[in-house]
Amino acid sequence: MMKEYVIGLDYGTNSCRSVLIEVGAKDELFSAVYNYPSGEQGVLLSAKAPHLARQSPADYLDGLEFIISSVIEQAKIHLSDFRSEAVIALTCATTGSTVIPIDHNAQALGLEDKENLNAQAWLWKDHTSHQEANLISEKAKILRPQYLERCGGTYSSEWFWAKILRLKNIDPATYAKAHSFVELCDFLPASLAGIREPKAIKRSICAAGHKAMYANEWGGLPDKEFLNELDPALSDLRDRLYDEALESDQIAGYVCEEWAERTGLKTGTVIAVGAFDAHMGAVGAGIKEGSLVKIVGTSTCDLMISKSKQPIAGVCGLVEGSVIPGFIGIEAGQSAVGDLFLWLVNHLGTNEYGKNRDEVFKNMTAQAAAMSAGQSGLLSLDWNNGNRCTLVDMQLSGLMLGQSLHTKVHEIYRALIEATAFGALKIIERLEESGTAVKEIICCGGLAQKNELMMQIYANVFNRPVRIADSEQTCALGAGIFAAAASKNMAVLELQKQMTNDCRREYLPESTEVKTYEQLYALYSQLYEAFGVAGSQDDLFGVMKRLIQIQKEAHHA
Amino acid sequence: MMKEYVIGLDYGTNSCRSVLIEVGAKDELFSAVYNYPSGEQGVLLSAKAPHLARQSPADYLDGLEFIISSVIEQAKIHLSDFRSEAVIALTCATTGSTVIPIDHNAQALGLEDKENLNAQAWLWKDHTSHQEANLISEKAKILRPQYLERCGGTYSSEWFWAKILRLKNIDPATYAKAHSFVELCDFLPASLAGIREPKAIKRSICAAGHKAMYANEWGGLPDKEFLNELDPALSDLRDRLYDEALESDQIAGYVCEEWAERTGLKTGTVIAVGAFDAHMGAVGAGIKEGSLVKIVGTSTCDLMISKSKQPIAGVCGLVEGSVIPGFIGIEAGQSAVGDLFLWLVNHLGTNEYGKNRDEVFKNMTAQAAAMSAGQSGLLSLDWNNGNRCTLVDMQLSGLMLGQSLHTKVHEIYRALIEATAFGALKIIERLEESGTAVKEIICCGGLAQKNELMMQIYANVFNRPVRIADSEQTCALGAGIFAAAASKNMAVLELQKQMTNDCRREYLPESTEVKTYEQLYALYSQLYEAFGVAGSQDDLFGVMKRLIQIQKEAHHA
Repeated sequence: MMKEYVIGLDYGTNSCRSVLIEVGAKDELFSAVYNYPSGEQGVLLSAKAPHLARQSPADYLDGLEFIISSVIEQAKIHLSDFRSEAVIALTCATTGSTVIPIDHNAQALGLEDKENLNAQAWLWKDHTSHQEANLISEKAKILRPQYLERCGGTYSSEWFWAKILRLKNIDPATYAKAHSFVELCDFLPASLAGIREPKAIKRSICAAGHKAMYANEWGGLPDKEFLNELDPALSDLRDRLYDEALESDQIAGYVCEEWAERTGLKTGTVIAVGAFDAHMGAVGAGIKEGSLVKIVGTSTCDLMISKSKQPIAGVCGLVEGSVIPGFIGIEAGQSAVGDLFLWLVNHLGTNEYGKNRDEVFKNMTAQAAAMSAGQSGLLSLDWNNGNRCTLVDMQLSGLMLGQSLHTKVHEIYRALIEATAFGALKIIERLEESGTAVKEIICCGGLAQKNELMMQIYANVFNRPVRIADSEQTCALGAGIFAAAASKNMAVLELQKQMTNDCRREYLPESTEVKTYEQLYALYSQLYEAFGVAGSQDDLFGVMKRLIQIQKEAHHA
Repeated sequence: MMKEYVIGLDYGTNSCRSVLIEVGAKDELFSAVYNYPSGEQGVLLSAKAPHLARQSPADYLDGLEFIISSVIEQAKIHLSDFRSEAVIALTCATTGSTVIPIDHNAQALGLEDKENLNAQAWLWKDHTSHQEANLISEKAKILRPQYLERCGGTYSSEWFWAKILRLKNIDPATYAKAHSFVELCDFLPASLAGIREPKAIKRSICAAGHKAMYANEWGGLPDKEFLNELDPALSDLRDRLYDEALESDQIAGYVCEEWAERTGLKTGTVIAVGAFDAHMGAVGAGIKEGSLVKIVGTSTCDLMISKSKQPIAGVCGLVEGSVIPGFIGIEAGQSAVGDLFLWLVNHLGTNEYGKNRDEVFKNMTAQAAAMSAGQSGLLSLDWNNGNRCTLVDMQLSGLMLGQSLHTKVHEIYRALIEATAFGALKIIERLEESGTAVKEIICCGGLAQKNELMMQIYANVFNRPVRIADSEQTCALGAGIFAAAASKNMAVLELQKQMTNDCRREYLPESTEVKTYEQLYALYSQLYEAFGVAGSQDDLFGVMKRLIQIQKEAHHA
């Protein structure tokens, strides 16, 4: 029998990548990466608007051609009997909400209107829409409280409707040119399928879920009466969006002639419905009931699956079928993790640690690893990009405390790692308080694979073992599993078992560090409450003193 | 009539310098600088004890020889009729409390015991003695409240007794070798005079004042009963210290043969009593009643003179005659100002801004100056080295808030400048609340001379004109004025008039910036209270949000 293959695509914040995998086997055979050439590492920024983050749709399509054709080329070279029809399906895992305005022909406006930042893709981490998000939260609280139950009680400026309404408010001319809007994870399958009619684009339930406030219970997208309260334009727009959203074991379309030619795929190859990277990544990482999968990248997504629909305050998404068909996908996350370290290296300057970024990280990590918990005397919050969970508040910002005149960059680096660990522990605590037992923690993504110091700190802060997913490409692997499921009409959990390895690496908590981190976490929690929770009136006078005390003990331990 | 000259010496944190001045004239003729070669820019540090800061006494004496002989050499070359006997007197302005343990022969222990950090000079900014300072404050509160009234209500870990007690507690062997202790400003005159008997060393009232809790009212140093409560060893030590402290228009001794030979001074040249740099600097800057003189350097000293002895809470010193004989010298200050910027440049790495430190500062300043108040979105406290006034608490530490993922180093630099301005405004407010009207603000020191951005920000934050002292060497000039006063038995205020110029530069407040800074100062005050004042329970939830709002307005203004 001829071997069958799938291609999983993973569209991240700075690059996109592909993996070619044999259906039913555990090897990721070939992969390719494309770094988005536009802007600052692929992100279009504005000096005047520090919360703006856009991307060029042309980068997406140029990358699409490159990463697919590259793995097919590799397969042709290295697999003697390979023919392109052996690739039976593909789909994508992408960032989100990454919202693209499109015209009547389903073309991204940014492909034509290259100079206008508002016509580009509005990247997930664009936080310009917080006023609009606040309006949506306020209106929903009064008119449609059920909408908010699925998204942690607060609508985020990172999400679909906030971004669309923002565009309408600040650039009505561009809004008028936009016939409809599409998530990146739906844009790529539609492009591959050559779909030229916006309403014919298949939509992902994972993206539609809480981010577009879509649920079967209330008939799909928010009703027109509610949208009208936000802005009559949104009520009009509803007719030009979609009525149905699909799980990713469904078919979004078939590769069209143009894209078959550009990529080397066979015309008619199955394209499964796309989904957000973290959700597919969780499948590639081996998610099951009781597992918390953390996709640790520029930001972090935390995924669990559950049979319960019980809302969880401050946890940003509960969507039926968003991870595995038949389960509720629970999504939480932190707005900045790897991005914090990139900020440190790119903007605070760390040339003394090495000649290039890799060398800087290597040496900074070595020096940070030589320290014990508490020794830096620093305590940081992880809010430089807002707080997605459990505060769901993008109007929060960074805070670093405890600096002396001798504080070094690698100490700040360690404090930032610790801050992300403390923020992650807040989420774990919230999940468990809400009755979702976390029996296992699996981390995946580049940082989980490479940053041993970080994973050891996580184990120590969590006081639990931290397992590392075996695949280095869990998002792309997950996309491949869904592509196979859609093409062969098989169960995702069955294919997951066939196509993923068990975790082989595990970090265990170290008791001395655990004790110190308990004390530091108590201080972190004080700052978290004071700056993050309205009306909390804690006495913070002791924070700096306690930190100095912990530092002294850590140096004499 | 033969022209007469004096030499003023200024011992700073990283270097010492000399100025040769004609008595009764306004020109500073020659000067020389010596950078202390030991440690990190002259400061001996310990990786294990981040609050430790010591200095090598050998650096002091090597510098003394160099800076005196250098100006005498210059005078010989450039002044045709110059002879060394024309130098009629000299004295020094130094950092303090910088406490030096000495042996039976009045030799610094650190000259012999070079490897032992505890045997060296304990630099003003050494903060290892906070437990001892707390003990002194606690005991004095109960037993001798009058002692605390003169030092703002709290004894500081930067001061004389705390450092001595610390040495005794952590290194009894070295303490046992120390026959007595001397401030740097008394050590240098005694060295020049060749004094070999500790009790023969003349002591400065300026240094003795609140830092050694000396006052004529209670018979000089703290009584033995009180010292015994701290530690019996201190009670014993009292007999080996001093009974009398002098103003700096008095004579400390005469240059001995050895030092005449080493420097080119004539044997027998008058040495006036030394004093702390800021106090002499205030005289060189033109202090009068109603002037607040800010000596802006690595840290900042704020000086006023007054006829009132009314205690001022949180203002660290009120000492009769410490600035101008016949007046109460009021001393306040901030523990780190220029040191904050040095920390930024030395430890956070700013190579992108230039190739060396001067270039980095120049370019960072230019980029920071291109911004308006509020645009960075940052808010910082100025406590990386504790808070000397008005909280008098060395167990405070740095805090930076409002960072995004795009925050740049020059924005942090601007936020640190602003933090020092806000801290300075707290002191001005406290002085005025206590009835000491601030009619004029004069800044002096290197930063005041060179950093136009900083001085403009100060004027905007204070909402008052900021004048710049005409002399670039106010401390050394002040020392020269005192040397002349001691030698010629003239009034300091009369010589000050003859030997200092009026301020020629002035920064005026800019109304738009003033308005924004009023808002930022309100937020700074919230953090100041929350972290600095026990029992204050403010709701800090709004701080980050308000800051983002101010930032947005600043970008659209």
